[in-house]
Amino acid sequence: MLNFTVGPVTLDKEVLKIGSKQMPYFRNAEFSTMTLESEELLKRSMNSPLDSKVVFLTASGTAAMEATVLNLFDKEDKLLVVNGGVFGSRFSEICQVHSLNYKEIKLNFFEDLTHGDLIPYDKKGFTGLLINLHETSTGVLYDINLVKEFCEKNHLLLLIDAISSYLADPFDMEGSNANAVIISSQKALGLPPGMSYVVLDKKSQDRVREISFKSVYFNFNKYLSDGERGQTPYTPAVSNLLQLNKKLKYVDKKSVTKIIQETRELAVHFRNEIIKLPFEIPTKSPSNALTALRPLGSISPESVVQSLKMNSDIYVMPNGGELSSKIFRVGHLGAITIENNQYLLDEIKKNLKSIS
Amino acid sequence: MLNFTVGPVTLDKEVLKIGSKQMPYFRNAEFSTMTLESEELLKRSMNSPLDSKVVFLTASGTAAMEATVLNLFDKEDKLLVVNGGVFGSRFSEICQVHSLNYKEIKLNFFEDLTHGDLIPYDKKGFTGLLINLHETSTGVLYDINLVKEFCEKNHLLLLIDAISSYLADPFDMEGSNANAVIISSQKALGLPPGMSYVVLDKKSQDRVREISFKSVYFNFNKYLSDGERGQTPYTPAVSNLLQLNKKLKYVDKKSVTKIIQETRELAVHFRNEIIKLPFEIPTKSPSNALTALRPLGSISPESVVQSLKMNSDIYVMPNGGELSSKIFRVGHLGAITIENNQYLLDEIKKNLKSIS
Repeated sequence: MLNFTVGPVTLDKEVLKIGSKQMPYFRNAEFSTMTLESEELLKRSMNSPLDSKVVFLTASGTAAMEATVLNLFDKEDKLLVVNGGVFGSRFSEICQVHSLNYKEIKLNFFEDLTHGDLIPYDKKGFTGLLINLHETSTGVLYDINLVKEFCEKNHLLLLIDAISSYLADPFDMEGSNANAVIISSQKALGLPPGMSYVVLDKKSQDRVREISFKSVYFNFNKYLSDGERGQTPYTPAVSNLLQLNKKLKYVDKKSVTKIIQETRELAVHFRNEIIKLPFEIPTKSPSNALTALRPLGSISPESVVQSLKMNSDIYVMPNGGELSSKIFRVGHLGAITIENNQYLLDEIKKNLKSIS
Repeated sequence: MLNFTVGPVTLDKEVLKIGSKQMPYFRNAEFSTMTLESEELLKRSMNSPLDSKVVFLTASGTAAMEATVLNLFDKEDKLLVVNGGVFGSRFSEICQVHSLNYKEIKLNFFEDLTHGDLIPYDKKGFTGLLINLHETSTGVLYDINLVKEFCEKNHLLLLIDAISSYLADPFDMEGSNANAVIISSQKALGLPPGMSYVVLDKKSQDRVREISFKSVYFNFNKYLSDGERGQTPYTPAVSNLLQLNKKLKYVDKKSVTKIIQETRELAVHFRNEIIKLPFEIPTKSPSNALTALRPLGSISPESVVQSLKMNSDIYVMPNGGELSSKIFRVGHLGAITIENNQYLLDEIKKNLKSIS
């Protein structure tokens, strides 16, 4: 089986080894020390301000998005949501369900966010901006510098979902003036799904303390307070935290730049080859994490996805909803290689004969 | 290392083997079929009514407790919480944080729930009862028949947290007329922590549909609807679901009765031996899952816990808060044996010489 989805991705041997071992008891000093080390490594990997803190949340990315919005904003806030696909819509859904005051910058699928998109919202009393750094459903990587400037000028709290971009595209939390950054275990970190990590700068931590958000499990105050001593208020996914520590040490040793460079090489190699076949890449600014592909002529995305699965035991990602008949996606995360890419390309070629 | 905590417990080989393997893609028919099978096996293991449904929630037990309360009850309800320790308090905290109308039946530590405790709340307009079948902080197993009768007589919706009791003590969902039952992965199921499973009978499912609970991640409507085809609305802890399926097949083959019998034998063996040493068991109705122990004389619980860890590489569970200076706990869940028990007893004996 070859896995070109973007989560769960193909895990590396070190991570699998931990999955095959007994877990230690976690309410003790050893585990606390490890978690505090992971916090520092995680911050270093995205250049978070030194006084940032990490919330280790046992739940998937959507939970982290919802919890972070509700810990940082309340009904007094006026929020801007950049919505260019499924995950932008999810931020909108969260705001809508919780009756927060928000406006959507609705982008067409595959479209970049431009200066022009932001102008109508300049000096209009907004207090926060929510954006997916990489809109996973379309593969678009937004221009973070544009967002940074706009947020600085308008004094907005900037919440970034970097779930599918972290360790795939260059990102600098301090450099982009982000106040809160959400990542998850199952994307470029290459861990099993089940945990999310939210990095909060000083300003966000202050907001968490000010906001009277009513929740037990999602109350970040408790996570920040127990986090001081490297613990979580409720039983975390212990094996996931062990795997995280191992992976972050690897990332630190190898360097984030090199890891991103390798992912970029995988993406560029694949893109250079796939456009020689009857496919086009609908995004102008693709993330290194994945490539969205529109089949040309009469080939349907579903038929490519299905033929790869049935004939070649290769998994690529179909899209849902409106996009299901337009595109599918090929991921570049996890333990995959240029040789795997080449095999995928060869198999696509073979399968095209029967489906086109 | 010998692990006598009750979660994460010592995992068996089959579960660890899955932890060491690549995960499959989960948004497809194969994974759906597996999840639907797990749902049926889980229901069978606790004799749930046939039209019950299971919510597979990627989050720890507290999240499942909070989510279930909020999906089943609203401000029109009048709730009774049985509070005999940390986990009873957690139900109260959930009700309090979310401004639900509730009364507490506050029990002294180690005390059973009696008919007399319930009488003051008879025919007083209550609509729901929340109880931990086994109060994990003290080891007390409540009398479910007492609760059943009271709930039937008063037409209460019965929500049971069976997290640390499931597969350790006999439990029959249909027989006890429970409407919702919460369990978690890391207790007697012997899986890594990170997922909880909520079994909802028909009446609970109807409540979920009626209640207008505002949440994205915790909205059970979506889980019930996606659950029809064996999927979850958000990325689940995939490896955990694979391990769950494996374990439930094992449970089904071996029989729940036998598994509980074995845990009971471990508990009884340990209790018969430990009372020959300077310890007393403060509970009259202990769960098979663990034994709470009060050291006699001048021995402190902390010194027993610490000496076992430092001298013997054995982990037992300290208590928190008020109980920390009174008791500690020894678990009987996970892949442990009578021989492990004997070793623990021998090591306690040895360590007593230096700490008493």
